Amino acid sequence: MKPIKELNPTFLTQEENKEHLINYLLETADNYLILGQRLGELCGHGPNLEPDIAITNISLDLLGQVRSFYQYIAQLKANQTTEDDIAFLRKEREYKNVLLVEQPNTDFGYVIVRQYFFDVYNRMFLNALQQSADETLRSLAFKGIKEAAYHERFSGDWLKRLGDGTEESHHRVQQAVDDLWIYTDELFHSTASSKAMMEAGVAPDMLQLREYYYEKVEQLLETATLKVPEVEYFQKGGKKGMHSEYMGRILAEMQYMQRTYPNSRW
Amino acid sequence: MKPIKELNPTFLTQEENKEHLINYLLETADNYLILGQRLGELCGHGPNLEPDIAITNISLDLLGQVRSFYQYIAQLKANQTTEDDIAFLRKEREYKNVLLVEQPNTDFGYVIVRQYFFDVYNRMFLNALQQSADETLRSLAFKGIKEAAYHERFSGDWLKRLGDGTEESHHRVQQAVDDLWIYTDELFHSTASSKAMMEAGVAPDMLQLREYYYEKVEQLLETATLKVPEVEYFQKGGKKGMHSEYMGRILAEMQYMQRTYPNSRW
Repeated sequence: MKPIKELNPTFLTQEENKEHLINYLLETADNYLILGQRLGELCGHGPNLEPDIAITNISLDLLGQVRSFYQYIAQLKANQTTEDDIAFLRKEREYKNVLLVEQPNTDFGYVIVRQYFFDVYNRMFLNALQQSADETLRSLAFKGIKEAAYHERFSGDWLKRLGDGTEESHHRVQQAVDDLWIYTDELFHSTASSKAMMEAGVAPDMLQLREYYYEKVEQLLETATLKVPEVEYFQKGGKKGMHSEYMGRILAEMQYMQRTYPNSRW
Repeated sequence: MKPIKELNPTFLTQEENKEHLINYLLETADNYLILGQRLGELCGHGPNLEPDIAITNISLDLLGQVRSFYQYIAQLKANQTTEDDIAFLRKEREYKNVLLVEQPNTDFGYVIVRQYFFDVYNRMFLNALQQSADETLRSLAFKGIKEAAYHERFSGDWLKRLGDGTEESHHRVQQAVDDLWIYTDELFHSTASSKAMMEAGVAPDMLQLREYYYEKVEQLLETATLKVPEVEYFQKGGKKGMHSEYMGRILAEMQYMQRTYPNSRW
């Protein structure tokens, strides 16, 4: 990212730029929404109250982030829409989250690995976003970074405990690492909108962070006595709205109040 | 409740007293568990992010309370059990929550009315429990009272907004009041264990609080332009383990991690 310089005041008066910024905000915030939703599914499901509660707290942090990003979108759209409509009233293809965050809560190991793979990215992303040329994004990043660092500590600590724990926990968490690894690369993929925002100094250059990301994650896997998977290709598609089979079910679950009680904004 | 006096140190060395205290703690904390679980079901389900997040926060407060109470039980049982076993490994008949808290999330009005009916009770209960002869309970009550007061403010404010809102919101929330009213009285029913604890100065005399409860609730209903239902009899049974049809589904949901991934404490 270039050194901070304020956006030219006319930048967002151009429809194309505004459209790219909105897309970029969706690409970012939809990850928080879907991961927050996935974690919310675990609320009170046991078998352990303590991590249950911590995980629900993380879910709430992510949903709090979602609100800030969607509110910014609503503002950019001259309040012709609301954070709730953006969250709950889109079609599957319009959600731009990466495939990683839609992966299911297969077991506690999957929950922790998915979380750690996301948290490292998210903390690096928010850290870089504090240099954005867009003032609102700078302040969102500044507000979110502490929570993100806490999340990464939580998931990283658990990953070490599970990897370096019993034979069973090691085996199961290695399985989760092997299965989820293919979804990590998409976090760093560019889209037309993220490229446009990067060129304007609004978005961090994620490809630059990609190297640090793998260095960091691979180091922690080693500490956790886990093997770094070798894969031939990585999965992608979410950022373009091409989601896995799981996404439909997440949305069905997420939108059930709306569907069951239409006009429930009473 | 009698003025604070410490329990005789030999009181809990008698098995019968200890058994009653444990039952009494379950009667109290199971309400938090089941209501916390019910609220957790709403996490991220929309249609509005803001109350969603507030409700999930309340759910987390209640689950935090649960942990404290169950940890105390585990301690009384010389750590032959854990908070997680108490939360997740009992059979339906062994849960002692009142029927009110198992009632479903029919719509937002039901969620708010159920919450308000519980919150008023809970705040009064914790307030009185600060005078308990049992030191641990006094400190739990002291820690919980602020959250309880916040919950009551949240649900009471919403109840007023819905009652005194649109014609539809008024109609729907009146329906919720009418349907849930019959479950309020059980909150104040005594059991053998709560009676024993009341006599020992450990438990508040809930029958004394019952009058203040209805005064308070009826006043708020009036402010909300809602009618106080007239009923011939109240529902009960939960405190004795006789639950409604909903309870089995809540437990199935709650214990699914345990059932789907047995031995998941790895």
